[in-house]
Amino acid sequence: MINEFEIIKKHLSPLTNNNVGALALTDDAALFKTPKGYDAVITKDAIVTGVHFIGDEKPELLAHKLLRVNISDLAAMGATPHSYFLALMLPKATDKKWIKSFAKGLAEVQQEFGITLMGGDTTSSPTLAFSVTAIGLVKSGKALKRSGAKIGDDIFVSGTIGDSALGLYAIKNKINNPFLINRYQIPQPRIQLGQELHGIASSCMDISDGLLQDLSHIAKASNVGAEIYWQNIPISQVAKKLLPSVKNPYQMIAAGGDDYELLFTASPKFSAKLEILSKKLKLPITKIGKITSGNQVLLLDNAKQVNLSVKGYNHFE
Amino acid sequence: MINEFEIIKKHLSPLTNNNVGALALTDDAALFKTPKGYDAVITKDAIVTGVHFIGDEKPELLAHKLLRVNISDLAAMGATPHSYFLALMLPKATDKKWIKSFAKGLAEVQQEFGITLMGGDTTSSPTLAFSVTAIGLVKSGKALKRSGAKIGDDIFVSGTIGDSALGLYAIKNKINNPFLINRYQIPQPRIQLGQELHGIASSCMDISDGLLQDLSHIAKASNVGAEIYWQNIPISQVAKKLLPSVKNPYQMIAAGGDDYELLFTASPKFSAKLEILSKKLKLPITKIGKITSGNQVLLLDNAKQVNLSVKGYNHFE
Repeated sequence: MINEFEIIKKHLSPLTNNNVGALALTDDAALFKTPKGYDAVITKDAIVTGVHFIGDEKPELLAHKLLRVNISDLAAMGATPHSYFLALMLPKATDKKWIKSFAKGLAEVQQEFGITLMGGDTTSSPTLAFSVTAIGLVKSGKALKRSGAKIGDDIFVSGTIGDSALGLYAIKNKINNPFLINRYQIPQPRIQLGQELHGIASSCMDISDGLLQDLSHIAKASNVGAEIYWQNIPISQVAKKLLPSVKNPYQMIAAGGDDYELLFTASPKFSAKLEILSKKLKLPITKIGKITSGNQVLLLDNAKQVNLSVKGYNHFE
Repeated sequence: MINEFEIIKKHLSPLTNNNVGALALTDDAALFKTPKGYDAVITKDAIVTGVHFIGDEKPELLAHKLLRVNISDLAAMGATPHSYFLALMLPKATDKKWIKSFAKGLAEVQQEFGITLMGGDTTSSPTLAFSVTAIGLVKSGKALKRSGAKIGDDIFVSGTIGDSALGLYAIKNKINNPFLINRYQIPQPRIQLGQELHGIASSCMDISDGLLQDLSHIAKASNVGAEIYWQNIPISQVAKKLLPSVKNPYQMIAAGGDDYELLFTASPKFSAKLEILSKKLKLPITKIGKITSGNQVLLLDNAKQVNLSVKGYNHFE
């Protein structure tokens, strides 16, 4: 049988790396101070069985996805990851082995991104669920926002789009495709890119709900319209192979979500700079469309408008 | 049918009170900066149906309890509440009326404690659950901790103990007792007291799991023992009336939990100061025991040791 005090002492406390502000996870709260010249960027996500994951995933993989999607939100603001708080909602039947593997996954992500655990809460729950609050740091006033896109700006995405949705499709249809499944299970937060976009991007966010829906958030926040060109959306070779077998490829790519790539806008004058940046980071940065006047967000396939029945994820549909 | 974007725009956005750092809840994260000379105190709790609440409570009451237990953690550190992040995990069948009432409850607590919503996440979930991350501010280096209790210190509690556990007992047994039920549903975070304890308390925490178990956290963090005297534990008149009908009064009072009163230690030289403080705040502050050498935490009834089978709440038992 598990016990929250044992979980905290044995598995979570070591994840603080003796970070002073965490107070060894033995206090009611943690202490944090923004370094001089910086703003804290704070994001909070909840991840629930049957909604964000199937439930039978390996605990290490769940830990990876959980932290990575939050770190991706920090990347979207151009921040450097600092630390995180974790609420663990665990079914009573959870065994010690599960906890150990889960903590191992957390430790791996911590090391990769240089973050530590600061605090949180461990409770029993009928449904396995998690909530992470992640903190990043960004130079004061320099955070990337969704609200600065201007008419005439180019629209860019990092990496390739649709791999993750196809990965989930592969899992559900028992298709053995390690590349796509890995893209679904282990998102790659684009921290370096986010940091390099200060002074370049006029707006930025990460793609979680689906390219079209997320672009509409930028359009709304910036009070503009947008059009993206189907032919320009970067699709991986592996995705291209699987795509013909999918019922609605437009839907899968442009509304599939869970990409955790950065979606941003920039003045055309930065095109050359972004090409250099792409080479430096060894990460595709692809121009996929234009910010327009009005308030419509359109997907165009050879100038013909594509209408999607669902533009992205809605939790309650 | 509900929709997370509508929930955010209509019900949650107004709760930011135009707090600039919240970015109108339209970005991937919020911005926060510790004011000069202050530390941020950050606490995170998860609240789950069937574990922390029954599930059929009025949404306003759930909102109150949710925020209040987090604010109580800030009180325990001597902090002033600043803002909070909210993860809402809602069953798909949740109706708009529920959301509206829940948001009304949040707004009431916000006004009472001068806090605003900064960000969060809204997701569907098989189980109704919440996670709050609350931020408070405390003068740099002045946060109250659990680790400073010294042998010979007096042990104090604020308010009365056991009301909340008896309130839950009343609900479960269909006993009509508005006072006790209110104590269970609407905890009173002792913010003012926490702030006044700077320079007085050698250790402090709020009682959530149960007096004895929480005291053992202070004892462990401070590497000391403790004894408390049954006769000295402050019990309300209403609780005293109901107590004889309860199977194990010791258990109910000393291990019932959910009190959200402050439990703290102080050198005997502060006795007079604390009496004055109690009058000033119109809040009982009662000496209930002594910090001792060793590592045992004892409950004594007329010098006779009382053994409780359960010292407090464990989520997985």
